[in-house]
Amino acid sequence: MSGKLYGLGAGCGDIELITIKALRILREADCIYCADSGKSSVLEPLINHWGLQDKIRRLSFLMKRDKALRAAQHDLIYQEIKAELLDGKTVAYLTLGDPSFYSTFTPLQQRALQDHFEVETVAGVIAPCVTAARANKALVEGKQKLTIVPMIDAELLDNLPQHALSFMKVKFHYDELKAQLEAQGILERAYMGVRLGLEGEEFFPSLEDVPRPDSYFATVNMIATEEEESSL
Amino acid sequence: MSGKLYGLGAGCGDIELITIKALRILREADCIYCADSGKSSVLEPLINHWGLQDKIRRLSFLMKRDKALRAAQHDLIYQEIKAELLDGKTVAYLTLGDPSFYSTFTPLQQRALQDHFEVETVAGVIAPCVTAARANKALVEGKQKLTIVPMIDAELLDNLPQHALSFMKVKFHYDELKAQLEAQGILERAYMGVRLGLEGEEFFPSLEDVPRPDSYFATVNMIATEEEESSL
Repeated sequence: MSGKLYGLGAGCGDIELITIKALRILREADCIYCADSGKSSVLEPLINHWGLQDKIRRLSFLMKRDKALRAAQHDLIYQEIKAELLDGKTVAYLTLGDPSFYSTFTPLQQRALQDHFEVETVAGVIAPCVTAARANKALVEGKQKLTIVPMIDAELLDNLPQHALSFMKVKFHYDELKAQLEAQGILERAYMGVRLGLEGEEFFPSLEDVPRPDSYFATVNMIATEEEESSL
Repeated sequence: MSGKLYGLGAGCGDIELITIKALRILREADCIYCADSGKSSVLEPLINHWGLQDKIRRLSFLMKRDKALRAAQHDLIYQEIKAELLDGKTVAYLTLGDPSFYSTFTPLQQRALQDHFEVETVAGVIAPCVTAARANKALVEGKQKLTIVPMIDAELLDNLPQHALSFMKVKFHYDELKAQLEAQGILERAYMGVRLGLEGEEFFPSLEDVPRPDSYFATVNMIATEEEESSL
């Protein structure tokens, strides 16, 4: 009988911000895969704290702009997971945040489903919520809409809607983002969390005089304009 | 010395989809407030499973369209919590989903901060992610933007963006939502989760021939159009 693939959200990396369900499955799994950017994984404190290090298999996802190269990389990683599944293993794939939300789990999940393996995804806490929690602010309330923008391309700043916004991974286009918010006269609505839940975390209640963050894990939230209905 | 107010996200109500952190704080708290729509709370299975029932104080939030009435209701509820805080108590406020995300915690959090009480917010798992997890689909990937729309007003359907969408609490405007998606020719991109993680949960991979859900806890997700970059 073939095994089962789980996609698990770890939350922001804080050892306690993982769900009871994800932790239970991590403990029961035969092996745990987690993405690694080459350096030591940001999930390491969580993995070590919960005593899971012996089951960990590291995967190197290199950022590839070319679609075909990216697909080839995913095929290669999936082959390794597929071998475990064919061997009847319970395989957990652990990802920062949520496994459906800009996650490296997606391409593996879709390949496993195509091959008719059993797949279960367990939602996790996402960075826009963690950042709002740290600010003690509403991310959205009442009738407000929220748009989430992955800042991996400065073009995504075109035609920003007027409601609540959350910009993820702002590092590479931080200066363009600030310039754009300033031009629209809404920079004072912004706040930023950097590596929240991880070592060296920082919180900035305003972006004024705050330079580009060093970390990839930086989220800028924007509170909604006052015209939008608030329930306060 | 005055107490401390915690805002805690319970996730979707699934007893295991709460974070380790929120559960620890619930166990340590002197009392736990949770919103109640008049009928028994949807959080009851979770509360009972973790043996927290003796610490629970129910609050009735009635939906009030009038802003002043709503504020008066929040003032009244806050007075009860304030008395506990002045008494030095650790007060937990437990909310479905995430306490910064369309949450009844926001007005209480803001009042407590104004009164200079210590407030800590702990993020939770939100319905758009839970719904995508159940569908084994990406909510968003790569460069895709996501807009979240609280369906408490049909006007919010005007000028829908072309990217990934999540409609929360669709019950009251479900027919308008379906008609709008059909008119835009994008109904086939929609799927729906109803009461996921709660008793009587249902999942619909398509909205075709699916009538209006009975429950307030119904979320419709839309996958992004194919033109949007996918990392698959």
